[in-house]
Amino acid sequence: MRTCRVPGAPVGQTDAVLSAYSFDTTGPSEVRDHDEISDLIDKPGTVVWVDAVNPSHDELHKLEEEFDLHPLALEDVKNRDQRPKLEVYPSHSFMVVYVHRDGKGQMEEVFVFSGPEWIVTVHHHEGKTPHFDIGEIRQRYTRTIGLTCNVGFLLYVILDEVVDSYFSAVDHIEEKLSRIEDHIFDDVNPERDERPIQQSMLRLRRDLLAFRRRAVPLRDVVLSLLRGEVPWVGDETRVYLQDVFDHLLRIGDEIDNQRELIGNAVDAHLAIVSNQMNEIMKKMTSWGAILLGSTLIAGIYGMNFDEMPELRYKFGYYGALGAMALLTGILYVMFKRKRWL
Amino acid sequence: MRTCRVPGAPVGQTDAVLSAYSFDTTGPSEVRDHDEISDLIDKPGTVVWVDAVNPSHDELHKLEEEFDLHPLALEDVKNRDQRPKLEVYPSHSFMVVYVHRDGKGQMEEVFVFSGPEWIVTVHHHEGKTPHFDIGEIRQRYTRTIGLTCNVGFLLYVILDEVVDSYFSAVDHIEEKLSRIEDHIFDDVNPERDERPIQQSMLRLRRDLLAFRRRAVPLRDVVLSLLRGEVPWVGDETRVYLQDVFDHLLRIGDEIDNQRELIGNAVDAHLAIVSNQMNEIMKKMTSWGAILLGSTLIAGIYGMNFDEMPELRYKFGYYGALGAMALLTGILYVMFKRKRWL
Amino acid sequence: MRTCRVPGAPVGQTDAVLSAYSFDTTGPSEVRDHDEISDLIDKPGTVVWVDAVNPSHDELHKLEEEFDLHPLALEDVKNRDQRPKLEVYPSHSFMVVYVHRDGKGQMEEVFVFSGPEWIVTVHHHEGKTPHFDIGEIRQRYTRTIGLTCNVGFLLYVILDEVVDSYFSAVDHIEEKLSRIEDHIFDDVNPERDERPIQQSMLRLRRDLLAFRRRAVPLRDVVLSLLRGEVPWVGDETRVYLQDVFDHLLRIGDEIDNQRELIGNAVDAHLAIVSNQMNEIMKKMTSWGAILLGSTLIAGIYGMNFDEMPELRYKFGYYGALGAMALLTGILYVMFKRKRWL
Amino acid sequence: MRTCRVPGAPVGQTDAVLSAYSFDTTGPSEVRDHDEISDLIDKPGTVVWVDAVNPSHDELHKLEEEFDLHPLALEDVKNRDQRPKLEVYPSHSFMVVYVHRDGKGQMEEVFVFSGPEWIVTVHHHEGKTPHFDIGEIRQRYTRTIGLTCNVGFLLYVILDEVVDSYFSAVDHIEEKLSRIEDHIFDDVNPERDERPIQQSMLRLRRDLLAFRRRAVPLRDVVLSLLRGEVPWVGDETRVYLQDVFDHLLRIGDEIDNQRELIGNAVDAHLAIVSNQMNEIMKKMTSWGAILLGSTLIAGIYGMNFDEMPELRYKFGYYGALGAMALLTGILYVMFKRKRWL
Amino acid sequence: MRTCRVPGAPVGQTDAVLSAYSFDTTGPSEVRDHDEISDLIDKPGTVVWVDAVNPSHDELHKLEEEFDLHPLALEDVKNRDQRPKLEVYPSHSFMVVYVHRDGKGQMEEVFVFSGPEWIVTVHHHEGKTPHFDIGEIRQRYTRTIGLTCNVGFLLYVILDEVVDSYFSAVDHIEEKLSRIEDHIFDDVNPERDERPIQQSMLRLRRDLLAFRRRAVPLRDVVLSLLRGEVPWVGDETRVYLQDVFDHLLRIGDEIDNQRELIGNAVDAHLAIVSNQMNEIMKKMTSWGAILLGSTLIAGIYGMNFDEMPELRYKFGYYGALGAMALLTGILYVMFKRKRWL
Repeated sequence: MRTCRVPGAPVGQTDAVLSAYSFDTTGPSEVRDHDEISDLIDKPGTVVWVDAVNPSHDELHKLEEEFDLHPLALEDVKNRDQRPKLEVYPSHSFMVVYVHRDGKGQMEEVFVFSGPEWIVTVHHHEGKTPHFDIGEIRQRYTRTIGLTCNVGFLLYVILDEVVDSYFSAVDHIEEKLSRIEDHIFDDVNPERDERPIQQSMLRLRRDLLAFRRRAVPLRDVVLSLLRGEVPWVGDETRVYLQDVFDHLLRIGDEIDNQRELIGNAVDAHLAIVSNQMNEIMKKMTSWGAILLGSTLIAGIYGMNFDEMPELRYKFGYYGALGAMALLTGILYVMFKRKRWL
Repeated sequence: MRTCRVPGAPVGQTDAVLSAYSFDTTGPSEVRDHDEISDLIDKPGTVVWVDAVNPSHDELHKLEEEFDLHPLALEDVKNRDQRPKLEVYPSHSFMVVYVHRDGKGQMEEVFVFSGPEWIVTVHHHEGKTPHFDIGEIRQRYTRTIGLTCNVGFLLYVILDEVVDSYFSAVDHIEEKLSRIEDHIFDDVNPERDERPIQQSMLRLRRDLLAFRRRAVPLRDVVLSLLRGEVPWVGDETRVYLQDVFDHLLRIGDEIDNQRELIGNAVDAHLAIVSNQMNEIMKKMTSWGAILLGSTLIAGIYGMNFDEMPELRYKFGYYGALGAMALLTGILYVMFKRKRWL
Repeated sequence: MRTCRVPGAPVGQTDAVLSAYSFDTTGPSEVRDHDEISDLIDKPGTVVWVDAVNPSHDELHKLEEEFDLHPLALEDVKNRDQRPKLEVYPSHSFMVVYVHRDGKGQMEEVFVFSGPEWIVTVHHHEGKTPHFDIGEIRQRYTRTIGLTCNVGFLLYVILDEVVDSYFSAVDHIEEKLSRIEDHIFDDVNPERDERPIQQSMLRLRRDLLAFRRRAVPLRDVVLSLLRGEVPWVGDETRVYLQDVFDHLLRIGDEIDNQRELIGNAVDAHLAIVSNQMNEIMKKMTSWGAILLGSTLIAGIYGMNFDEMPELRYKFGYYGALGAMALLTGILYVMFKRKRWL
Repeated sequence: MRTCRVPGAPVGQTDAVLSAYSFDTTGPSEVRDHDEISDLIDKPGTVVWVDAVNPSHDELHKLEEEFDLHPLALEDVKNRDQRPKLEVYPSHSFMVVYVHRDGKGQMEEVFVFSGPEWIVTVHHHEGKTPHFDIGEIRQRYTRTIGLTCNVGFLLYVILDEVVDSYFSAVDHIEEKLSRIEDHIFDDVNPERDERPIQQSMLRLRRDLLAFRRRAVPLRDVVLSLLRGEVPWVGDETRVYLQDVFDHLLRIGDEIDNQRELIGNAVDAHLAIVSNQMNEIMKKMTSWGAILLGSTLIAGIYGMNFDEMPELRYKFGYYGALGAMALLTGILYVMFKRKRWL
Repeated sequence: MRTCRVPGAPVGQTDAVLSAYSFDTTGPSEVRDHDEISDLIDKPGTVVWVDAVNPSHDELHKLEEEFDLHPLALEDVKNRDQRPKLEVYPSHSFMVVYVHRDGKGQMEEVFVFSGPEWIVTVHHHEGKTPHFDIGEIRQRYTRTIGLTCNVGFLLYVILDEVVDSYFSAVDHIEEKLSRIEDHIFDDVNPERDERPIQQSMLRLRRDLLAFRRRAVPLRDVVLSLLRGEVPWVGDETRVYLQDVFDHLLRIGDEIDNQRELIGNAVDAHLAIVSNQMNEIMKKMTSWGAILLGSTLIAGIYGMNFDEMPELRYKFGYYGALGAMALLTGILYVMFKRKRWL
């Protein structure tokens, strides 16, 4: 039986299933030395997993030599911002995937090299903790598969973790969208500032597009694995990868769904804005009529005709004021009833 | 000849065709005990149908043991909210379908496990009665096929019941849409509140999208059955499944149709709102002209020129008032004719 | 050589090519009795065509027994409103097509059963005469093919008649659309009521969608016939069916075309409505400026300053009125020139 | 070696490569008699090209007999307005293509029959000269291929001439579109009449759609020729037909491009119209404020208070006028600066 | 081992890898004479690369003779503005690609002929330096592959340089788009001129379409190379061409992405413009109410009633002015609070 080593556990420990090695800006951790890794690679029944966080170019070149990585793949790692893809070279495969947990524009790119008995993952992060959580993957691996060691299963667990992060992202987006939809119809009044809604809808559309661009091509990656294009991913992982593929289809459906929903919300909002214009114009017309009506009465009694009996009345002035108040009241009630005010 | 047992009928009765077993929040009903089910499973010529409503995790695990269900499938049952799909494991198949009867957002997820001589259905419901109506299915089964017992036929009847619920949902949606369309053009006036229309159109679009997401992937499920991917669904059900497939195509057509119709209605409504703005503005302009015209006459006779002969006329004042009334009348008729008022 | 009998011609006549039998709400016509039909079916060299208009369920069941029709197909006939399709059962085929002549929403559903030596057509109609015109089909059959008798040719003639009705429908729609387009740009003025245009555009879109749903799936039906899925439709009808297929492609093109044109018209109309708003606002601004300008002059000479020389002028009042008229004239010409009025 | 005869050259001349025959409304030209054509058809090494312009039904029937044309094809020629297509009958092929030179809605339909050693083209035109220019085709044929005679090459030259006419049409459309785009942004002012722009955009969209409907299906025609479906179009024309196919792809790209560009222009124009409304409203507000401000000053000094010191000032009146002028000036400059005027 | 010659290096130098020859408007450079090229072509182990910048028709014909280029291909070179494509003739292949570096409409068309041991590139440029940078390609070739000489590798380097230019173009477009998006929401006020934004969005859409038309068909070209349609592009370049293909997929994704983003921005801008109209109308209403309110007060005290006690008050006039100021103040604060001002 093979002996594997778990990342995060001391390399020397015998009960460990996989062995990990991580570079970090704070310096490498949980690593003995390069010789030991070399030993482990050559040792037949051992799967080695090396995880490099924010590696320098020097460190990348050490990995390149150690595992004989293809220069085109390494170029992609250096350039970053690649399309999700799977490339199969004679001695190893190269995979680019994105972890996306919060539904915002930022995603964490993870490069996964895998040979028959080793996996190398490279990722960068700017925040405090990486979104690509190797501890969680180790736990999930142990939970799902137990102590057998198998590169295919490890790849599956990594992909499953990635796809799980997408469900979390979809949930975040769904929540944001539903908040926007509520906001569109809630408390619509001419005083409301519509710009933040428009801006958040535009931003959500942008985020969804970025997400889609990263998530949808992953289908082809998993499909290639299912078709057996990577020889060391055996048939025993088939059912599991099928499950991942299924989840990716669902993610794709959800993203398309959200895109259409946000499009509908944009339409609805535009109609709301048009409608508000009508509301404002009705108010303007109503108040204009009320003010102009009273002004007309004042104008009439400001005329200089010799014979204007009302002007001689003792309470003529108050009558005129009363007429204005009455007109205002009547028009106000009338417009209120017609919902123009 | 096989002996089958009908769900809802006492297990011991000989004239019964299928045997059912149901968990419920109110406790299991129509069930003897687990031993009896085990016996029935092992008994060669018997088809057992176990229907579990709102089962607890414990009850699910009992089913898992009894029927040797695949852990990935059971995980899906626990997580719920799956994509409609068919998964074929060596000893049984796993199907996810949705019952949708009322055209609103809510749907009832039904998980269907089927082996060569048994079917297990699991569903949850919150309302008083489940949308997945096993009594109706039993009746339909007896009506269509008579007393022969066959897992494939039972699967067909379940799918047919599901697709029938979609026709009911489509009818509901069609009715709602046609009410909205009528409402858009009926009694259009500036007093009308447009917001409820917009909101109901947005909601209908959302419901249609949700429906589509659940109904359209079912085509692939039925297609897989037609292609014979599940060995215990034989050729004798082919014509029947073809009929279900045909109905699903029609449902898909109808949904796409409704989507386009609702999109057209949204366009038409936006145009109506724009048009209303024109109507309001015409009214505003008309009343503004009428009021300002009279105000101008009042202003003219409010001027303080020494020589203004009209001011000396005995009926000058009444003449001015008459002029105002006349102007108002003329403008009113004029605008009315041009349909500005 | 075979002896065939024409529908509408006395069954006994030897120069007749096909024999027809028709149920109607006004009672059956041109029919001897069921025995005779039974005889004709069994007679080897004879093609029987039975056409049933508005049959009752009883009459359908008689046909079912006589021709051994499949119960699923008969269910579709009873439910009506099916998708255009072709279903091939071992002893006969079942086809659903729609006749559509006037471009409005209503279509006439025709069910066509065909065996090796017989055809049964079932259709319902509410108007005075059915759109599915069996007299026309008989004439066309005789004209095209002469006196040979062949189920395949008869099917072709029926399909050709159906597709011909689509060309008539397309013409109606095209005419309606072109009338709408003219109406959009003709005599645009703020007085025009835009609502009927919007409503007719929405209705036309709905009609087009309904038409498309009925006409486009017919392609697959004809394709299946071309592929030889119905054994008694031989190679000699191939060129003719290809012609029908070609016409269906053209119909599909035309419908898509009309859909895009009506979409463009909707866009153009929305722009026209927006534009009209600008026209109304320009008018409003112009008249507002003219009235307010004169009001201002009146206001100025209504001021109560002790020293206002103009007030003392003999023709001051007329001067002021003249100034108002002049201002009105100047502004009027100015706005007219700028096309604001 | 074969002897061919050129259309337009006397039939008897030996240096002529192809022989042509043309019907016209002005009577047939460049033709000896039908017997001669019959002779030429039967003569083995000769390719005959007969071009019929605006033929009567009688003349069509003569051609039908002479060349044994299929009745379905001839029906299409009589009905006209066919879809571009290629139909292959046992003894000859039938092709429908459209010549389109000026980017407007009108196109010239050309029917091309071709047998192993003859080509018959039929076209109709209403203008002075036909768009399908047989002189140009003859020249092009001689220029490209020299004196060998070959039906396939002649078909290629006809198709090349047709596709060349499309490039001319695309150029016309591109020019029109670019003029519209310039017009949209050029000299935008509230005085401009937007309706002609909208109408020309709608017309351009309609023309593009009509063009697309005629040009895009031609791809399938050329593809069928490339696949060798017409036996007398040999491999030696393959490279040439590939070139035509390539040009058709480019035409298709261009049309799709233009469609999207015109769609964008429609969007931009709608935004311009909305924007103009804002401009008009700003102007209206500005002038309203200026006029109402002065009116208010006039109103104030029109009040009848006993104690209004300004009224007693000698230059009070001029002061008030000055205040109005000053207010007008200030507001004018202010609005001008804010670009409201 | 082969001896190759680098463009830009003297032809006679032994350490040079490839040999180049360039025409220019300033005359040919880095060229000995035609005889030498002829010699090099015939010399078995040598790859010759001839680069012709802005060649005259005469110079093109010399190349045609020298390398036996196909006349159809040469016609394309003369006509220019071709679709990106790959054509394979028996003795050589012909490729059309576009270099696009700055994201604006202008692109540089490059024609690439390649035989088993030679490459001829033809391009035209109007600016000072060509976008197709042969120096950069030479460097890249040497850097990637070293001194071996191979037509396939050279083709790969040319394609890689082309695709690299696309990344630069995408960056430019992305930057422009993000500037537009910022501009849409930044400092939105009724004073802003919206037309430049609309115009730049329309222009960006046009540029994107033009870019897409040039970049996307390149996929098929690379795919053809990958499928081995050009015999002298061997398997050793497969991984490299796969990399180019991958980059093209990413470019295609980016372009589609940008198109959708710009579409969203157009939507958002339209909503902003609609919203601004509301803002303007609120301002207009507010100021109208303030001015009309004060005018009404002035009108009231301009009435000529005999009994108007306020008119007799000593400070009545100031009271009226105060009332106007108070009303103005109250309305101002009220509208300010409601954000109408």
